[in-house]
Amino acid sequence: MNIHVSNEPPHEPQVDLALADARKEVASEHGAIPTGPRAGSQKIYVAGELFPDIRVPFREVAVHPSANEPPVTMYDSSGPYTDPSVTIDIKKGLPRVKSSWQLDRGDIAPVLNPREVKPEDNGHASGKHLAPRFDVSNHRVFKGVEGRPVTQYEYARAGIITPEMEYVAIRENLRREQTAPCIRDGEDFGASIPDFVTPEFVRQEIARGRAIIPHNINHPEVEPMIIGRNFLVKINANIGNSAVLSSVDDEVDKLVWATRWGADNVMDLSTGRNIHNIRDWIIRNSSVPIGTVPIYQALEKVNGVAEDLTWEVFRDTLIEQAEQGVDYFTIHAGVRLPFVPLTAKRVTGIVSRGGSIMAKWCLSHHKESFLYEHFEDICDIMRAYDVSFSLGDGLRPGSIADANDEAQFAELRTLGELTKIAWAKGCQVMIEGPGHVPMHKIKANMDEQLKHCHEAPFYTLGPLTTDIAPGYDHITSAIGAAMIGWFGTAMLCYVTPKEHLGLPDRQDVKDGVITYKIAAHAADLAKGHPGARAHDDALSRARFEFRWEDQFNLSLDPETARKFHDETLPKEAHKTAHFCSMCGPKFCSMKISQDIRDAAKAQNDAGASLTDAEAGMAEMSAKFRAGGGEIEVKV
Amino acid sequence: MNIHVSNEPPHEPQVDLALADARKEVASEHGAIPTGPRAGSQKIYVAGELFPDIRVPFREVAVHPSANEPPVTMYDSSGPYTDPSVTIDIKKGLPRVKSSWQLDRGDIAPVLNPREVKPEDNGHASGKHLAPRFDVSNHRVFKGVEGRPVTQYEYARAGIITPEMEYVAIRENLRREQTAPCIRDGEDFGASIPDFVTPEFVRQEIARGRAIIPHNINHPEVEPMIIGRNFLVKINANIGNSAVLSSVDDEVDKLVWATRWGADNVMDLSTGRNIHNIRDWIIRNSSVPIGTVPIYQALEKVNGVAEDLTWEVFRDTLIEQAEQGVDYFTIHAGVRLPFVPLTAKRVTGIVSRGGSIMAKWCLSHHKESFLYEHFEDICDIMRAYDVSFSLGDGLRPGSIADANDEAQFAELRTLGELTKIAWAKGCQVMIEGPGHVPMHKIKANMDEQLKHCHEAPFYTLGPLTTDIAPGYDHITSAIGAAMIGWFGTAMLCYVTPKEHLGLPDRQDVKDGVITYKIAAHAADLAKGHPGARAHDDALSRARFEFRWEDQFNLSLDPETARKFHDETLPKEAHKTAHFCSMCGPKFCSMKISQDIRDAAKAQNDAGASLTDAEAGMAEMSAKFRAGGGEIEVKV
Repeated sequence: MNIHVSNEPPHEPQVDLALADARKEVASEHGAIPTGPRAGSQKIYVAGELFPDIRVPFREVAVHPSANEPPVTMYDSSGPYTDPSVTIDIKKGLPRVKSSWQLDRGDIAPVLNPREVKPEDNGHASGKHLAPRFDVSNHRVFKGVEGRPVTQYEYARAGIITPEMEYVAIRENLRREQTAPCIRDGEDFGASIPDFVTPEFVRQEIARGRAIIPHNINHPEVEPMIIGRNFLVKINANIGNSAVLSSVDDEVDKLVWATRWGADNVMDLSTGRNIHNIRDWIIRNSSVPIGTVPIYQALEKVNGVAEDLTWEVFRDTLIEQAEQGVDYFTIHAGVRLPFVPLTAKRVTGIVSRGGSIMAKWCLSHHKESFLYEHFEDICDIMRAYDVSFSLGDGLRPGSIADANDEAQFAELRTLGELTKIAWAKGCQVMIEGPGHVPMHKIKANMDEQLKHCHEAPFYTLGPLTTDIAPGYDHITSAIGAAMIGWFGTAMLCYVTPKEHLGLPDRQDVKDGVITYKIAAHAADLAKGHPGARAHDDALSRARFEFRWEDQFNLSLDPETARKFHDETLPKEAHKTAHFCSMCGPKFCSMKISQDIRDAAKAQNDAGASLTDAEAGMAEMSAKFRAGGGEIEVKV
Repeated sequence: MNIHVSNEPPHEPQVDLALADARKEVASEHGAIPTGPRAGSQKIYVAGELFPDIRVPFREVAVHPSANEPPVTMYDSSGPYTDPSVTIDIKKGLPRVKSSWQLDRGDIAPVLNPREVKPEDNGHASGKHLAPRFDVSNHRVFKGVEGRPVTQYEYARAGIITPEMEYVAIRENLRREQTAPCIRDGEDFGASIPDFVTPEFVRQEIARGRAIIPHNINHPEVEPMIIGRNFLVKINANIGNSAVLSSVDDEVDKLVWATRWGADNVMDLSTGRNIHNIRDWIIRNSSVPIGTVPIYQALEKVNGVAEDLTWEVFRDTLIEQAEQGVDYFTIHAGVRLPFVPLTAKRVTGIVSRGGSIMAKWCLSHHKESFLYEHFEDICDIMRAYDVSFSLGDGLRPGSIADANDEAQFAELRTLGELTKIAWAKGCQVMIEGPGHVPMHKIKANMDEQLKHCHEAPFYTLGPLTTDIAPGYDHITSAIGAAMIGWFGTAMLCYVTPKEHLGLPDRQDVKDGVITYKIAAHAADLAKGHPGARAHDDALSRARFEFRWEDQFNLSLDPETARKFHDETLPKEAHKTAHFCSMCGPKFCSMKISQDIRDAAKAQNDAGASLTDAEAGMAEMSAKFRAGGGEIEVKV
């Protein structure tokens, strides 16, 4: 592949700042900057070979020249916000990075009479209670043309490689063809991770249903990304207002903030008023796929009375959100009437909002779920825009006591049945998973999912491995997330410190994202993803060689790493010191260890074998003593 | 067992506050209280049956009367500091809880000429640089009498049950004979966890070398605790000053703070000046076992020049610290001369301070380690005071790249050899473990340790599962810690957010302790410890029933849980609200789920089977609709 690197931005920079003012205040209030490059990083773009127009973003971190190492290439989910040559205008939305390829080919066409916004879409909010509308006059609504392929699944099945497929292939490889060795060391539990990802491999994985590229044709701002067991583990961040709290600016800010730190996807879980208008702002300013749970808005449209939900209201909501550009929908079609009583003896019943709404509907009508009954209709709507399914686990366990029970697994098997239907209809599908699960029951979740859901990507919330630490559930769940990611889960939905207690603020979003980047990367390492360890090794070399600035810049959160270091050793000179505050200069094991290495190298250069442990030790000792000053750690 | 509960403090309360003033300022500066009961908790004591004098502390959390549940009994490592009837006097030290049993029996005797403090013990600090001495005039130094048993291992081998053994048996059971069901549900990988712990079981485990009760006979302030694979997983917190930062008050404050939040053991890793004096303050004010790494102080005594270390200096340091009352010593006797070159090609060489000091000594002298050569002499000294071995992993990996390499495992096998020697000498032994290990290589660490170290308790640092997140290594390591705890590790050494970057402050100590309490408890759950799940279930029931105050009080950190909740719903009325800020009242799955449960119960009361899913749904539906208001979630 003829990959070339360019520092040019992918599109003309936009001018004018506007609504961003409020956001800026939030930023400065929290002491963070939502735009501009990340510390020590440079934004670069790699063009495609099959599709030269595509420009795949990376974040490149250069290390100190003394290291004599190439820069480290990082996956970059932050979008144009971290490109200093792009001027962000929240009012206009992001540049549209996706090509007009589908349109040129006649696969999609503008919708002549797109759905009008209705008062109930925003919960009948009016006057000062109504969030401002995003100016969508430039947003033409598209839809698949009858008889033509439109979803990535359909293209893949037809043997067609799309620009999106090449885009994600380049993205997954992290330029390691050029910069880093391919390290195969792990246990992948039967996954099929290639040394290098090709567009054809992407196509095959999508065609088998083992991966998805969530991207609504009405969300051209998206930088395509792939979710599948044989790719890098991804993370999702949830944002959204609630009936208790709400603000447009806050949600856009959280979106940008979450992706800045590494969120690959964002779900807008807004409830209450203004859902429609807030979603426009989010989608038009998002370079990552946006997911929603349409039943939330449908419930608002019937004034919060679950029993009053109808297929017609739900259908209208699907079309509304699909036309806006939502990339994937959580659909709780597995919450079937017969499963509801299985939850009655649980310690924590049904903890999924969508699940409980549908359970209540089923119970009060004594009817099978309209989501289940109309599943093929739902497929037809979602296929027309390539909205991916995220089949919701409405009966997931909400406590350790309820993990892996019959309600949970009955629903999972149903999700497997629905997966086959959705595929037959041409849709992309992933499957949602728990929840609260103790460590010894986690693997069974992955095994059952693989078995019953035909290797469709698994997308789990945590799982939390204990219930006893509200306030720290990002940690209780990171343990489970890392493990289930290792076992094969393709995307991890973050949990923030506020889980169970309140809505996450900016700091919570960042804590959740960084924690889940840790879990996802730990999973990549353990699976033996061939590109994963290059990052660890680069940072460890920097640590061993006292390249403090490189250590900070290579870390997931350079600001925090630097701040922690500077609390005890603030002087600039300490950034090159060959010790740190933990041990002080006398006790620095790294320094002593470098002395040992130097001595051993001297011995090795003299022809002795390093692994022949006993041999040559006398010589080494002599050289070591003769070396004098450079092995003296006393200060 | 005739357990009775008493609210009486175990000893006469002490009067007078003194040096604590500085500590108080620190406390208020951080907005926390280092003394007084924890939120929602009551301190209780349970007496022994074999030894009626012993009083085992617990923390009891009562729940709201509406729950009709007994209080939850928590393991309590916080010592007298959380007993409101005890007045703390840092200058006098804690009450001595251990009996004079060994003395009465003639097994131990006062040392007539205890070692005098020498200027080099405090790094020749003088004048204003010398930390104040703790008044040790009431601290008589004891030693085992020639020909008599003195260690718990020796008593156990002789078939003798000690008060310490009954103490830990009561402590491990968490009063669940009275209060909670015994839930056996887990995968213990061949452990032998009993339903209830008896003193005889404790004796057997110690006699087999599978568990230790670290407690120097010169540390009578200790509340005995046990470390072993068949008991609750324990955690250790590291404190200590360094050459860069130091303060007596800060270290005592960190000790109290760490145990308040749940540290079972504390290691004093001080380096620099004043090591001896600071240690007196720590030991005399600690109700948990204190561990040290004597080589640190020995190095200070030779002015930081590793090559100048001698057996005589080290021996003198062991006696000095054993007479002070240190409960366990990390001894890096496994860092043998032939192993040093095995580290030369590592990415991060030797990262253990003690390991690098010994490696440097071996290399510069080209001699086998004096710790290895004098290992039997070390045993003789430690046995005389019942100081436990913590056989140090001086060659542990310091990066993902170096995990499970030959250097690490060669040392581990040596630690197994040394374990047998120490047991033959009558000593208690545990084994230290890594470090940095990716998830797929963690289990091999436990398996190799069990195989080569004859089931002596494993005590690991993390392990960290990735190197890329400095600033968040409490989290990268909690993932590994939870897993290795599940596999069989008996004690987890905490890692704080400051790891690799700086010395932990108060907040870091708390974050590290809470994070490791999570890891340890997640491990207990997964192992199927029969008492573990009662805590999770009690909290989950509180959550499901909207008993917010109970949720806070039952959490590992009630202050943080309450604070997070109150950020969005501060009003007192919201503490009884049947919803929270995440979903608001319309979307509360818990509320809907309770409605479903009520409906199902109504059906069940009417004689239908709950598991017969299809049956009776029409009736349920009818009742549900007829129920009217109470199932209406609209507000």
